[in-house]
Amino acid sequence: MVKKEEIKNILCTVAYKGTNYSGWQMQGNAVGIQEVIENAIFNATRQKAEIFGSGRTDAGVHALGQTFNVQLNFNKVCKLPLALNAYLPNDIRVLSAKVVSDNFHARYSAHKKTYIYTLCTGEIESPFDYETCEYIKYDLNIKEMQKGASYFVGKHNFKAFCSAGTSVTGFEREIYSFSVTKLGGKVKFEICGNGFLYNMVRILVGTLVDVGRNKIKTTDLPNIIESQNRQLAGKTMPARGLCLKCVKY
Amino acid sequence: MVKKEEIKNILCTVAYKGTNYSGWQMQGNAVGIQEVIENAIFNATRQKAEIFGSGRTDAGVHALGQTFNVQLNFNKVCKLPLALNAYLPNDIRVLSAKVVSDNFHARYSAHKKTYIYTLCTGEIESPFDYETCEYIKYDLNIKEMQKGASYFVGKHNFKAFCSAGTSVTGFEREIYSFSVTKLGGKVKFEICGNGFLYNMVRILVGTLVDVGRNKIKTTDLPNIIESQNRQLAGKTMPARGLCLKCVKY
Repeated sequence: MVKKEEIKNILCTVAYKGTNYSGWQMQGNAVGIQEVIENAIFNATRQKAEIFGSGRTDAGVHALGQTFNVQLNFNKVCKLPLALNAYLPNDIRVLSAKVVSDNFHARYSAHKKTYIYTLCTGEIESPFDYETCEYIKYDLNIKEMQKGASYFVGKHNFKAFCSAGTSVTGFEREIYSFSVTKLGGKVKFEICGNGFLYNMVRILVGTLVDVGRNKIKTTDLPNIIESQNRQLAGKTMPARGLCLKCVKY
Repeated sequence: MVKKEEIKNILCTVAYKGTNYSGWQMQGNAVGIQEVIENAIFNATRQKAEIFGSGRTDAGVHALGQTFNVQLNFNKVCKLPLALNAYLPNDIRVLSAKVVSDNFHARYSAHKKTYIYTLCTGEIESPFDYETCEYIKYDLNIKEMQKGASYFVGKHNFKAFCSAGTSVTGFEREIYSFSVTKLGGKVKFEICGNGFLYNMVRILVGTLVDVGRNKIKTTDLPNIIESQNRQLAGKTMPARGLCLKCVKY
């Protein structure tokens, strides 16, 4: 029998390529990342444990540093990644594990999150990154997009940049930084904030793409924010370009 | 009916992630890249045509710039990549197409080929590049490997660096350049030569890995070359790290 005092609250960092999953959560017949990790935990430790993610990622969205906590009886916590990776598929890797206090929760204890969105410009998609980049065929005005990104930094009501489908209590979030950089044929968006609404990053990037194509003026962005009207913002960009970079506590 | 004079000899460049294929050629039940491209040609043009690759790549080996030629009746050759990509899976992309002389052959007309081999050092494989990098867990002496690579440059008999399994007429090949560079956690080998024996690049890299681990001394390399003895060279590195970068004519 496992004694109560042996059970530790463990925080793990996990990287995954989301292409082949229904997202963090199970959806219908498709396999969720959470479920795959819980199965690996059972296979490695013979303990049935629920894991608590820092948040859900949608189908096709990736992570370099998703986090979850889990209550487990496991002696050498630093060896937990090795033990779990032995049972995980190659596109999911546990990177680290450490003991945290009993009241720590990967979601509710999070202070900030950083997401990356990667766009490629070009006619022909590369066989090597079509799963992790979104391709667009038109040129983008990077300078205007950089200027546009700065309008979102700060505390705002982001209702105009939120898809229907989740019940949230409020639409105010704070964005700490939002950068747009071009390297070779790739455009990288990096956004850090205290939290994000449903599809918020993908809609913000879609709005900046419209800015980059001169379909939305940067000076219109404050009005779009203030309108709280989803119709005025840009489209929701596809999942494959999005990656949860890290969660800070 | 297609008139003989309308048929053009077309040289195409193609990139592919080889992970899900039996290699360039069909093998047993597994699907070959050549076959997939020939099917796309049939679907796009209604012409049954055989394609002639610059060479075969093994199962799991990738290409940034493999080449093939094909005899086709196709009007706007510059539009051929678009037409074929519409019928190709995402992990195979035709990058370019141009008309070449009737006696051009992608294999026999080739002057030099460049391959890249990518190693990652680290305990945990990344979900994003485990298909295109080989992982090793030990530290490598890059300087010694760079010195070692220079011993292979020039005309040599490479019998010690050739797997059994193909009938070739001679083992002499000329290496024009062979570089080893480290960037972040990755070690990249880039080798250019007039041709390569079966598994030659993978065995050369395996030999340099032994040099990097101090299992083979650089000063022993001339003796290993001269021995023509496969047993004295390093192991054949796994396919996933290898990529055909380009073929020059």
